[in-house]
Amino acid sequence: MACQLLKGKRGIIFGALNTNSIAWTVAEYCFKEGATFTLTNTPVAIRLGNTHDLAEASKTIVIPADATNTEDLKILYEKSIEFLGGKIDFVLHSIGMSKNVLKNREYHELDYTDFLKTLDISAVSLHKLMQTAYQNDYLNEFASVITLSYIGAHRVFEGYSDMSHAKALLESIVRNFGYHYGKARNVRINAVSQSPAYSTASKAVAGFDKMFDFSNQMSPLGNATAQDCAGLCVALFSDLTTKLTMQTIYNDGGFSNVGMSSDVLLKFT
Amino acid sequence: MACQLLKGKRGIIFGALNTNSIAWTVAEYCFKEGATFTLTNTPVAIRLGNTHDLAEASKTIVIPADATNTEDLKILYEKSIEFLGGKIDFVLHSIGMSKNVLKNREYHELDYTDFLKTLDISAVSLHKLMQTAYQNDYLNEFASVITLSYIGAHRVFEGYSDMSHAKALLESIVRNFGYHYGKARNVRINAVSQSPAYSTASKAVAGFDKMFDFSNQMSPLGNATAQDCAGLCVALFSDLTTKLTMQTIYNDGGFSNVGMSSDVLLKFT
Amino acid sequence: MACQLLKGKRGIIFGALNTNSIAWTVAEYCFKEGATFTLTNTPVAIRLGNTHDLAEASKTIVIPADATNTEDLKILYEKSIEFLGGKIDFVLHSIGMSKNVLKNREYHELDYTDFLKTLDISAVSLHKLMQTAYQNDYLNEFASVITLSYIGAHRVFEGYSDMSHAKALLESIVRNFGYHYGKARNVRINAVSQSPAYSTASKAVAGFDKMFDFSNQMSPLGNATAQDCAGLCVALFSDLTTKLTMQTIYNDGGFSNVGMSSDVLLKFT
Amino acid sequence: MACQLLKGKRGIIFGALNTNSIAWTVAEYCFKEGATFTLTNTPVAIRLGNTHDLAEASKTIVIPADATNTEDLKILYEKSIEFLGGKIDFVLHSIGMSKNVLKNREYHELDYTDFLKTLDISAVSLHKLMQTAYQNDYLNEFASVITLSYIGAHRVFEGYSDMSHAKALLESIVRNFGYHYGKARNVRINAVSQSPAYSTASKAVAGFDKMFDFSNQMSPLGNATAQDCAGLCVALFSDLTTKLTMQTIYNDGGFSNVGMSSDVLLKFT
Repeated sequence: MACQLLKGKRGIIFGALNTNSIAWTVAEYCFKEGATFTLTNTPVAIRLGNTHDLAEASKTIVIPADATNTEDLKILYEKSIEFLGGKIDFVLHSIGMSKNVLKNREYHELDYTDFLKTLDISAVSLHKLMQTAYQNDYLNEFASVITLSYIGAHRVFEGYSDMSHAKALLESIVRNFGYHYGKARNVRINAVSQSPAYSTASKAVAGFDKMFDFSNQMSPLGNATAQDCAGLCVALFSDLTTKLTMQTIYNDGGFSNVGMSSDVLLKFT
Repeated sequence: MACQLLKGKRGIIFGALNTNSIAWTVAEYCFKEGATFTLTNTPVAIRLGNTHDLAEASKTIVIPADATNTEDLKILYEKSIEFLGGKIDFVLHSIGMSKNVLKNREYHELDYTDFLKTLDISAVSLHKLMQTAYQNDYLNEFASVITLSYIGAHRVFEGYSDMSHAKALLESIVRNFGYHYGKARNVRINAVSQSPAYSTASKAVAGFDKMFDFSNQMSPLGNATAQDCAGLCVALFSDLTTKLTMQTIYNDGGFSNVGMSSDVLLKFT
Repeated sequence: MACQLLKGKRGIIFGALNTNSIAWTVAEYCFKEGATFTLTNTPVAIRLGNTHDLAEASKTIVIPADATNTEDLKILYEKSIEFLGGKIDFVLHSIGMSKNVLKNREYHELDYTDFLKTLDISAVSLHKLMQTAYQNDYLNEFASVITLSYIGAHRVFEGYSDMSHAKALLESIVRNFGYHYGKARNVRINAVSQSPAYSTASKAVAGFDKMFDFSNQMSPLGNATAQDCAGLCVALFSDLTTKLTMQTIYNDGGFSNVGMSSDVLLKFT
Repeated sequence: MACQLLKGKRGIIFGALNTNSIAWTVAEYCFKEGATFTLTNTPVAIRLGNTHDLAEASKTIVIPADATNTEDLKILYEKSIEFLGGKIDFVLHSIGMSKNVLKNREYHELDYTDFLKTLDISAVSLHKLMQTAYQNDYLNEFASVITLSYIGAHRVFEGYSDMSHAKALLESIVRNFGYHYGKARNVRINAVSQSPAYSTASKAVAGFDKMFDFSNQMSPLGNATAQDCAGLCVALFSDLTTKLTMQTIYNDGGFSNVGMSSDVLLKFT
C-alpha cells in the first residue's frame, strides 16, 4: 500500500498523545506515504504523552500549542512552514475534551462553564485553526483538512453527553468553513466519523466498553480501527479526492446505516 | 380551526417581541385554542418591544428573564406555575442572537467571545431551560417543548454565519434532552425548522431579502409564514402528537427537499 | 381532543383491513373529528377483513380497488366524490405487500418478479394514486396526502428485506409528487414513519417480536401505537399544517435519533 | 499519483460506452493504478459505443451482458474470472436508463411499464449483480463495489423524473446488500453521488445544461468531473478504505451541503 501517495505534501497533525491515539497511527501512515509534517498538542499533553517518540520516528518536531489560542496557532503554522519548507497541504484536527464527561456528570447536571469549554476546545478550535490559516494564507491551494467526529453528533448515546453537542457543532463548522475556504482557495474540509476506538479520551466515557461491543455487533464489518482511520485519512489527504468537501464520512464498518443487526437481535428473546 | 385544542394546558412562551415575531403569532394561536401561558423575554427586549400589549390581549403577565441565567429561569418557572395554577404543559423557546451577524462580520473574521455568546444565548439556553425544569420537576408528564430552528443548521447559507452553528447545536440539544426527559417523564422536545420570515431578528442577516426570495421560489408551497408556524406549534403542543419527539420538523413549504425548482432554473440561461 | 378538527373534509382511506390495521384507527379518529370519507382495499382484502364493519360505524361505503390499477383508482375517486358530495381533501395510503417477505426468503435469494411486485404494490401505487388525481383534478386545493413508511427505508433491519426498498422508493415519490402537486394545486404529501406495530402485515416479518421489543427499548417514549399514528394523521390532514410537505415525519417515540439506549446497553455485559 | 494502488486487483467495469462516460475514465485510472479488469455493457451499447477501443488500451476484453438478466451476469462473472485468473476484487456499476426521461414525459404523465423498467435497469440490476455473486461466491473477501448515484435520490430536480426514484432505490440496495455481503464476506458496497457531468445519458435529461450551471455555481469547488470521480473510485477500490461501507459518498464539490451560494444569490435582485 505504501506507494508514496502523499509525497511532497506538508502537514500538521494534532492529538498524537500516545500509541493509543488515532492521530498517532495517522501520522505513521502519512510518514510511510512520503509526507512530511509537524506534530502538535497542548504543553500538558506533550508532557504526559509520548509525542516526542513519534516525532523522532517521523523525523520531525513537536510544537506545543493550545488550539483554543489563536496566537499559539499562528506560531504553530509559522514554525511548521519554516520547518517543512513551504505552506501546509494537510491538517489533522483530532481534539476533544469534556470535563462534564470526565467528571461523569449526568446529562441533567451539566456545569455550563465546562459545557462552553467543551465546545471551545472540541469544536470552535477548528474554526480558530481555519480562520488563522485563512487570514494569513498558511494553506496551499487544494489543501485538505480532516477532523475526527462521532455519530453521537446525530444520535443519542448515553454517556457521550456534551461531547455529542461538540461534534454536532464541529460538523457544522466543517460545512461552513469548507464552503468559504473552498471558494477562496479550493481548500477542502471534511469530518471522518469513526467507530468508537480505545484511546485515552474514550476511556473517560461512561459505559464505553459496552458501547464498543454494541457498535461492533451492529456493524457488518465490525468497528473500524485506528489503522482503518489512517487509511481513509491518507486517501482524503491525497490528490484522489480533491472535489470531496464539507462532508461527514462514516468510517464505521456500516454502523450508521444499520437499524438492527442479527447479532444484537439475539440478545432479545 | 379554533376548537380549544389546547384547553387546560399551561405554557411559557419566549421571544414575543412585537407583531413581527413568530412567537407573537404562536401566542395568539395558543390563546385561541384555549391555552393559558406566561410571556417572557429579557428585560431589554421587554423595554424595546410590545410584549405587554400581547399580555393584555392574552390575559396574562410578562415575566422578565435572561435565558442564559439559570436563576432567572427558576424564578420564571415558579412565577408561571403560581400564576397559571399548575405545572407547565408546553414551552416555546424562540431565542436567537449573534453579534457576529449583527456586526456583519465575515465568516473568516469572527470574534470568538461573541461566537461563544451566540452559542450560549441561542442554543445552550435551551439546555438550561430543560435542566432547570428537570431538576425541579416543573413540567407535567407529557409536556411538549418546541424550539425554532433553521435549515442553516445543515446547509450553508452565506450571511447566516455563526447562527448556523447555534442551530446545529440547538438541534443536538433537542435530541439529547428529548431522550433524557422522555425517559424520565415522557416529555417531548422538538425543533421546528421554519422558512425564513421577516422579523426583527432576520432583518439583521445580510442579504436576507434575497435569501427570502430564493427560498420562496424553491418551495413548491412558498415560504411558511408565522401563521403556518403557529398552526404546527398548536398541533405539536396538543395531545395529537404525544409520541413525536427528538425531531427537527421542516415547516418550509417543501424547501428542504428541493434540489432545484423550475422557477429558480429560469434564472439560468 | 375530538373538536371537529376535520369538519367538512372529505377523504379516502386505504388499508383498513381489521381492528389491528393502523388505517382502521386513523379512520376512527377522522370520523370523530368530523371528517367524511370512503374506505377502500383490494377485493380479496375486503373479503378477508372486516372493513364493512368499520364502514357501518363510520356511516360510509367500501369501494373495492386494486391500487396498482389506474382504472380502478379512477373509479374509486369518482365514486368517492359522488358519495361524499365533493372533491377529496385527504387521502391515507396505507399499502404494503411483499411476497419475498411473506415467503421468508433470504435477502440473497430474492425472486425478482416478486421484488418488482413489492415495489409496484407498496410504492408505485402512491404515484398512480397521485397521477390519477392530478390528471383528473380529483383533489381540492390544499388537500393533504399521507402514506405510512418505516425507518427501514434508511437503515437495515434484518427480515424487512425488499420492503425496505419499497419504503425508500415510496418516500422518494412523496418528495417528487409533493413538489409537482404542491406547485400545481398546493396539495401536500408526507410520509409518516411509524414505530413497528402489530398488524396483519407486520406479523409476516421474520423476527418481528424481537424487532418490536428492541425498538420499544430504544425509544425513550416507547413505540408509537396506532392511536398515536391516528393523532398525527389528524394533525397532518387538518389546516394546522398546510405548509408542511414532502417530508418523512418520524412518529416513533424518538427511536430514529437514538444510537444506543441505557435499556439496550444493559443487554451487554 | 499513479503508484500502483490497485496492483493485483481484478475488477469488472460496467457502462464505459465512450470517452464521455464516467466509467471510461474510471477504467483508465484503474488501469494506471495497476488493476486488471473486464469491461461490459449491453450488446446494443457495445455496438453503438467505443468500448472495444478502451479494451484494447486496457489490454482486456469486452463481455456483453444485460445487467437485468441473471444468466448473463453469471456468464459475465465466469468469463471475467477466467480471463483475469481469479475471483473479483472490485466492481463498478454505472447503469441508468429511463424511457420516461428519454421521451421527456411530464412527471404526472409517467408510463408505468417504463417506470418499472427504469427501476429494474437502473437499480434492481445492482441487486441482481450482488445476488449472483453472493450465491456463487464470485467476489474475493474484502472486495469493493461502487455504484454511481445522484443527489436526486434525496431532493427534487425537475427533469430527473423517475431516475430520482431509481437512485433512491439504488442507495437502499447499497445499504442492505452492504449489510448482508459485509457480514458474510467483508465485501463493501458504496454509492458515489456525483455532480452532474456531461455524458450520453445526461444529455437526455431536460434542462441538463441549466442544472449543470446551477450545480456548478452552488458548489464551492465547482462540479466534480469524471476525473474526480475516477480518483475517488480508486481510493474506494483500494485497501485504504476497507471498513467504509453502505454509504453514499458525495463527490460534488460541496453541493450537497450548500443551501445558497453567493453566486446564485446574485441572480436575485
